[in-house]
Order: sequence, then structure tokens, then C-alpha cells
Amino acid sequence: MSATTTRTSPASVSFETHPDRYRHWKLTFDGAIATLGMDVQEDAGLMPDYKLKLNSYDLGVDIELADAIQRIRFEHPEVKTVVVTSMKERIFCAGANIFMLRGSTHAWKVNFCKFTNETRLGMEDASANSGVRFLAALNGICAGGGYELALACDEIVLVDDSNSAVSLPETPLLAVLPGTGGLTRVVDKRGVRRDLADVFGTLVEGVKGKRAVEWRLVDAVYPLSKFKDSVAKRARDLAGTSDRPGAGPGIALNPLGAMGTADAWEYSSVSLAIDRPKRVATLTMRAPAAPVEATPDAILAAGDQFWPLRAFRELDDVLLRLRSNEPAIGTIVLRTEGDPALVLGADAVLLEHREHWLVREIIHFMKRTLKRLDLSARSLFALIDVDSAFAGTLFELALAADRSFMLDDPDRPIAIQLSGMNGGVLPMSNGLSRLDARFYGDPQTAKDALDHEGWFDPQAALAAGLVTYAPDAIDWEDEVRVAIEARVALSPDALTGMEANLRFVGPETMETKIFGRLSAWQNWIFQRPNAVGPTGALTKYGTSDRAEFDYGRT
Amino acid sequence: MSATTTRTSPASVSFETHPDRYRHWKLTFDGAIATLGMDVQEDAGLMPDYKLKLNSYDLGVDIELADAIQRIRFEHPEVKTVVVTSMKERIFCAGANIFMLRGSTHAWKVNFCKFTNETRLGMEDASANSGVRFLAALNGICAGGGYELALACDEIVLVDDSNSAVSLPETPLLAVLPGTGGLTRVVDKRGVRRDLADVFGTLVEGVKGKRAVEWRLVDAVYPLSKFKDSVAKRARDLAGTSDRPGAGPGIALNPLGAMGTADAWEYSSVSLAIDRPKRVATLTMRAPAAPVEATPDAILAAGDQFWPLRAFRELDDVLLRLRSNEPAIGTIVLRTEGDPALVLGADAVLLEHREHWLVREIIHFMKRTLKRLDLSARSLFALIDVDSAFAGTLFELALAADRSFMLDDPDRPIAIQLSGMNGGVLPMSNGLSRLDARFYGDPQTAKDALDHEGWFDPQAALAAGLVTYAPDAIDWEDEVRVAIEARVALSPDALTGMEANLRFVGPETMETKIFGRLSAWQNWIFQRPNAVGPTGALTKYGTSDRAEFDYGRT
Repeated sequence: MSATTTRTSPASVSFETHPDRYRHWKLTFDGAIATLGMDVQEDAGLMPDYKLKLNSYDLGVDIELADAIQRIRFEHPEVKTVVVTSMKERIFCAGANIFMLRGSTHAWKVNFCKFTNETRLGMEDASANSGVRFLAALNGICAGGGYELALACDEIVLVDDSNSAVSLPETPLLAVLPGTGGLTRVVDKRGVRRDLADVFGTLVEGVKGKRAVEWRLVDAVYPLSKFKDSVAKRARDLAGTSDRPGAGPGIALNPLGAMGTADAWEYSSVSLAIDRPKRVATLTMRAPAAPVEATPDAILAAGDQFWPLRAFRELDDVLLRLRSNEPAIGTIVLRTEGDPALVLGADAVLLEHREHWLVREIIHFMKRTLKRLDLSARSLFALIDVDSAFAGTLFELALAADRSFMLDDPDRPIAIQLSGMNGGVLPMSNGLSRLDARFYGDPQTAKDALDHEGWFDPQAALAAGLVTYAPDAIDWEDEVRVAIEARVALSPDALTGMEANLRFVGPETMETKIFGRLSAWQNWIFQRPNAVGPTGALTKYGTSDRAEFDYGRT
Repeated sequence: MSATTTRTSPASVSFETHPDRYRHWKLTFDGAIATLGMDVQEDAGLMPDYKLKLNSYDLGVDIELADAIQRIRFEHPEVKTVVVTSMKERIFCAGANIFMLRGSTHAWKVNFCKFTNETRLGMEDASANSGVRFLAALNGICAGGGYELALACDEIVLVDDSNSAVSLPETPLLAVLPGTGGLTRVVDKRGVRRDLADVFGTLVEGVKGKRAVEWRLVDAVYPLSKFKDSVAKRARDLAGTSDRPGAGPGIALNPLGAMGTADAWEYSSVSLAIDRPKRVATLTMRAPAAPVEATPDAILAAGDQFWPLRAFRELDDVLLRLRSNEPAIGTIVLRTEGDPALVLGADAVLLEHREHWLVREIIHFMKRTLKRLDLSARSLFALIDVDSAFAGTLFELALAADRSFMLDDPDRPIAIQLSGMNGGVLPMSNGLSRLDARFYGDPQTAKDALDHEGWFDPQAALAAGLVTYAPDAIDWEDEVRVAIEARVALSPDALTGMEANLRFVGPETMETKIFGRLSAWQNWIFQRPNAVGPTGALTKYGTSDRAEFDYGRT
């Protein structure tokens, strides 16, 4: 499509890592305070054709960041504040690596931004829901995506010297947007006045010192001599606002141990089967094989083998792999297997102990994973058929789907059931439960479904509006096949746009504004010749040529 | 950019028309019921290379629709319901003309959709704020943009025969979105269940009869034999919910009489001077020359010469001309002239009589025009200097601007002042006053500014956060010049994206969702090869070739 998209993407990206293997971050602990020190290794990018200078980042750097935040939540309940800073002198972070962006396909850029957005929203989720506070300690220049990382923190402090500024230079330097939440957070979260944000968004050199505080871009500046102590004090103060338990034990997040073949990935509770000729993947989640651990102590002892956590970690991993590694798979068929009563049993345990720190973490992790599903640019069809376990939490998969099919066969009776987990515990990005989003025009029906005692058979589910179709045994196979074949024949771009509009009905939040408004505009710009064409700014960055623009306004 | 954008746009589009000159609509009146009958003339498109078959439309058709709605509001206070229907048998409207879209530049497509969106939102504004109800009487096939027009109405009724269906076939037929509010209104306004909306959005043939009612796509269906009477009854019922005066006199909206030259347009209260080499236009609004009429009777007698109406009609017209006819003008400098006390006087009259139907219409028209300014994809800089009249309503121009500059020269003292018109009477699309949007992070400052008695001099305005800069006389010229030169040098696409994000801080509404989420995705898709490339669906529509897609998901 353009002169810039010459490189292929990495062959296969894994989203699993561990602090022992981090290349770009140092994660250290001092009681209630953890420090995430950014120290990006120039030569350790995911692809060899760019160097990660000046703490600039690519997806590999962000995968480590996401991992660190998850581990702090699960493995370190004693941590109440995370200081995000840099191990390099005079530079905090230069943002996303421009040469990486320039060499990437459109789809890679879009998916990279989506993952970084999810990671930063995950930090805000940790603060809002788990009492993990984040303090951005900007010890040097903080540009573009670096400042967007800081914006995701609860507080931002900046060293006050002649060098250190915060900036969003994307528009003037690269002709793209600060699209990792930057524009949205500046005005919506930090309340920077919109005209000052406009000035800031066009200033390559950024804003420093007292003015950065006056404009609300940072919370405080400190001279270098007082920086370390001031950061330590603010970190302690932030910790004082946390409701975390403050002591362990946490639980270890061990490797998932997925078995991959050419066209399948197999986890303990999740399977993915890829049919490349048909451009369809079938994702199956399995109910627990036995009743789950029922007390906080037993759940702690089970650790990452506790079914709700294990199954959703696997779901999260498989979704990320699919997004990055299987762009041609346009439709995901969502299935479940096992005993639905055991899912409902797990739901009951989660709801009973939701105030316990670990159960809380697990529920919020499930919530974030389901959001990841909502935000995946793939068509989602749920198949509710024999031996399925679409109950409670697993019924969220059907509610997340664009369409659902339930087999109506008297010889093989199947049923679905809701639980308290469908009532708002696992909200979408727009703040609604998937049930309320489904019945946005008819809230009483949502309430009736939630209040319904017991199971819904296929006709009851259809009448209650909980499934799209309920074909009988004769029609089932053809109807499902035809629907999938018709789906995968449509333009994937139009489907992405349609799904992004229909899935997020009703209210918007800062989160949906970032994905719906900011990302959609950024994606538009990521295709524009003024950014990525032969004379575009992203193409010409770092060369001796100046960008040349078509000045026509759209 | 693509094989499809081969045609240039019309040389110059005028947005003024009159029912006597309509080519495509018949506007008739029967007491409280007006009928807008669509009867598009195939050979009367804005450009000669397409035929407007089957009541399909181009911008010219929509300009007449917008004109008709304005005239109903101002010229016909007796009208309480508008029946929107077709004069052709068996076809209501086939939507936007596909051959027009295919031959249009990207910018033309985007601006065409923006105007049609504004027109449909204007219908909803008329219903919500002026008691003008709209009834879509679908007497035949209603597809794509035709159904989107129906969605903008309060009620939709459909003839029940074997032929007549509603449909949104854009995704399966053209690989683009139902982008004139369609996707948003189906789920957000009409409350169609999202999975049914998903099915509907992929069904070329659409949905008809009882199922269309069950899915909430229409409010009722009637057999042809009962259609006319049922429509008449529903129109009367809707009229019963209106608070319109029900009797005249209305006021005539006469031609604006703008004088155009190669690089200027001159109206009675608005001037536009275009500097093409600099890619800047200066838009000046003039305060009334004398105190405005102060009683409803006098305002009715003044009619369209009443300054607030006249000045904002002129502003509206000049913005539309700029958008369509001057794509290379990236920055609009906003100025005012005259006696600001007379603006405040006009504001006092508007506020005192805002319950009167005509004053209400005028205020909502001013509101819609200012929204048009917010939604214009041009950088807006306000210059507050000698002899300016940035007070009350005219200060909204400065609040709409991305930046404002106020001259601080003791020898030529100038000042700004707020009025009650700045306090929420003229909200943005997101429901906030521009003052509240400006101080989204600091609501007390917004309140203080509104409560402030009397004028703000430049330093007071700066301290109150009401202007971005207050240069002194020595710096003024250079500072303004450098800022404008720097602005117009930036990528117009990145600026469009940045402005679209910074201007709409805080809450989102159905209106901002249509422009921010739906339009942004549509604009993305409007560039995608799967739609507009050599084998894209929009390119191949109506040919003997099938579209060929790149099935990679983004």
C-alpha cells in the first residue's frame, strides 16, 4: 500500500515472559514500593532492522511491561506503589520506536497500538480496582509514547533541569497522533485546557519545569538534588491510599505450557484449532473438571492452577497470539465444553470471596481478558451445542459474540444459565455488563434474564433474547456452515468497523474514547500518504529529506 | 490514491436553495402536517457522470432536504409533524448514490457524509428542541442511506408487501459502513439487539414485515390498502405531542445575497477573506450596528434581518462553502468587529424571550451553526484585537477556537465579556458548554468566569484562562504570524485527528459517537483497498467483476 510497509512482521510473537528473562526492564522491590526501571537494550528489538535507542520501545518491550504489572498484582500483594522510571540518565523514554513504526505494516501498527493501550489501561485498572498506585518518576526527557506511559500513572513528577521535558511530538514530527491514549488522557484525565493541549501537541521540544505543572502536564517538578527523595516520599504517600493487603503470600504465575502445532494450540482449559483455508479458528474453553477450591486459603494454595485464573490466562494468551500471528483468521468460533454446573460452582466461589485480594485480582483479570475479546478485530460466533458449558462466566463468551447459535435437539437437550457473574461484575469497556449492552433498548429483559431461576432450554433462550438462533438438528450443520462462510467472504475492514460500532452500544468512557475515537482517527492517519506515503513524515523521519504534504483538508 | 478517485469534485457548491427551485423534493403542507416527498430527478445530480436512480441521492439532494427542514422550523410554526416519504412507487430511497461515491475523492466522500450527518442530527434536534416530529413513511424499498434517513425520524412505518424492506447493505455490497449514523442509531437510538443488528448489517435484502417490527427496525407495518390512512393517523398522533405554536405567522428565510469574488465572500455581518498562498482564511463576524429588536413582535417583524439569525445564517453558509469549495485552506482565523455592548444587548433579548417559538428557533440555529464550526476539519485561531466584539455569543467563536490570541496594548484597550449565552444555552455536540469543555479539569474556573461581573482586560482574561496568549503590541504581529505559519506547515491529516480529539473532551453523546466513532471508522474504511482499491467492492460495484479482498484483519 505504501512505500513504508516493506518489512514483514515477526514470524511469531510470544506474550509469555518472566522477570528473569526481561531484556528491557528491571523490576525491584522494597517493601510496599516496587520500581519498574526502563533500560531498553538497543539491539534486542523484536526485529533486527531497527535499534531501540533512547529507551524507545517496540512490542517486545511492552510485553515485558504488561508481564511485570500482572506479576505485581498476583505475585506481590505487598506492593502498593509502583515507581515507573528509567535506568538511563537524562532520558526517561523516547516513545515508540519510529523506525519500527515506519517499517511495519498497517495491521502491525494498529495491533501494536492496541496492545500498548490495553497495557496502559491495565495500569489504570490496577489503581482503580486493586489499589496498586503508579508514580511516573521522569528523570529525563519523556517524549511521545513515553509521556503516554506517564499519563497512565496516577501521578507524574519530572526532574527540573534544563534538559528534561514532557512532549507529544507525534503531530509535528511524524504527522501521526499521540495515539496510545495521549490526546484523550491529556484533556480527559489530567484536565489540561484544550487550547494548551493544542499548543503542547504541536511543540516538538515539549514543556518543562514550572510551566509543565501549571499546564497540569505533570504534578510536580523537583531539582535533581531532591528528585530521589521526593519520589520516595510521594511513592510512600501514594502507598498510603492503597487498600492492598500489604503482605503475602502472593501466587506465582507459572508458564502456561501451551503446546503448539502448525494449526492448533492446546492449553489445559483452552484449545484453539485453526482452519486456514476457511479463515476460521475454533476456540474452546473447558469447564473445570471438578469443583474448584472454595476458600481463600485453598485458592491461594491452588495458585495459578485455580481454574478461573488458569482458564482466563490461557484465553488471554490465545487471543494475543491470534491477533499478532494469525491476521488472516477473520472469524473465531467460540465453544465451551464440560459440566456447566461446575462453572456455576466456580462463579459462586468467586462471588462469595470477591473481597479477598486474590479473588478480586482474578475477577478483574477475567474482566480484562473479556475486554480483550470485545476489542479483538475478528468476528465472533458462539456455538452452543452438545456437551457445552455456557453458564455464568462462560456465557460471557456468548454475550461477547456477534452472533450465537444454540442447537435445539430434543434428543440431545442442552441449556444455558446465567449467574451473578453476568450481572455487572465483568463489565465491558463502556461500563455496561454484556447483558445490559445486549438489551440496551430493553433493560427489563436484561433484568428478567438475570432474575430467571435455573436453566434456559433452546426455545426459552431464544424467547429471552439470549441467543440469536436456535436451529434444530436437521438445520444446525448447514445453518452454521453457511453463516460462517458468508461471514468470512465479507470485507474484513468493513466488518472491523461494523463490529467496533455495534459491540459498544450506549455510554462511552475514557477507555472506549481511546479505542473508538482516538484509535479510529489514528488508524485513518496511519494510512494517509502525508504520514506513510513516499514523501510522508513517518517515511522521511531520520532521513535528510523533509516531508512533503498534500495540504488538502479532509 | 486509488483507482476510484478519478473525478474532480463540483467546481463550486452553493448551499442556498428554495422550495420553488427544488429538483428532488416536494414540500407540501396540510395544517399541522407537512409532507416531504422524495422524487429525485435522475439527471439532476451535481455532476453529470452518474444518474440518481431509485431516489438515490448526492449532496445536491441533501442540500434541499436541509433547506426544507430549516424552512419548516422558521417559516411554518404551524407544522407539528413532517411526514418523510417518497413520490415514487415501490421505492422509498436507495441511499447515497454509489456511482457518485465511487467517483468522488476521499475528501469529498468524507465531507458529503459529514453534511448528511448534520442534516439528520438537525431533524433530531428539531424534534427534541422544537417539537417538530418526523414520521418516516416507507412506501417501498428503503436501503442504506435511505434507512439512515428514516432512523433520524421519531417513528418509522413500513408498507407490508412482498417487496418493501429496510436494509443496510453497505457492508456486504460495498465493503463500507452505514456511516450516516446508521450503525449507531440502530443500536443506540432504536435499541435493536446487537446480534440482530449484526445480522441486519450483513443482509443485502434487508428485513421486512413483522420481523422488522420485532427487531425494532421499524415501529409498525401496514398493508398498502391501509398505509395512507395509518400514516395520516400516526402523523396526527405525533402532532399531538408537539409544543409548537400551531399558527403563524412564520418568517421568511430570504436569500443571503452574499457577494463573492475570487478570494472573498461578503455578507451583511460576515466576511471571509481567503489567502490561498498562505492557506489561511480570515472569517470576521460583525456585531449588530444598532440595538436589536427587543420584543417578540418586533423580532417577528424583523424576520430574517434580526441580527442573531442573519449573522448566524451567514456564518453557517460561509462554513459550508469553505468546507466544500476550499479544501486547501487549513486554518481559519476568527475575528469579530463592532460594539460588543450591542452583542450583549442581543444576548439579553434572546435570553429574555427564549421561550418564544421564534427566539427558540434562532437560539437552536445558532447552536447548530457553532456545532458546525466545532466539526469543521480546519484549525481555528481566534484573534481578539482592536475594535473586536468578542462578547457573549460572539465569544463562543473564541471558545470554539483551538487557540486564542488577545492583544494587550494599553494604548488600545480591548476587553472580552461573557453573558448568559455562554452558560450552556449553546452546547457542543457532547452536551457541554464550550466554557465547561474548556475547563473540564477545573469546573470552578468555568463558574468563576461565568459569574464574573463586567469585562476582562487582556491580563484578566489570561489569568482567568479565557485566552491562550496575550501578546503586547510589540510582539503581537510576529507572534500571530509565526503561530499561523507553523500551523499551516503541519500535516493536515494529523491536525484533523488531533483537533477531533481535543475539541470533544469529556462525555460522549449519540451525536459525538456518530462523528467520533462511526465517522472515524468509516473514513478509515473509505481509504482501504478492500473498498476503494482496484479490486475493492466500491470500485467493482455495478460492473461484471466481483470484488477481491485482502482478507488480512487489521
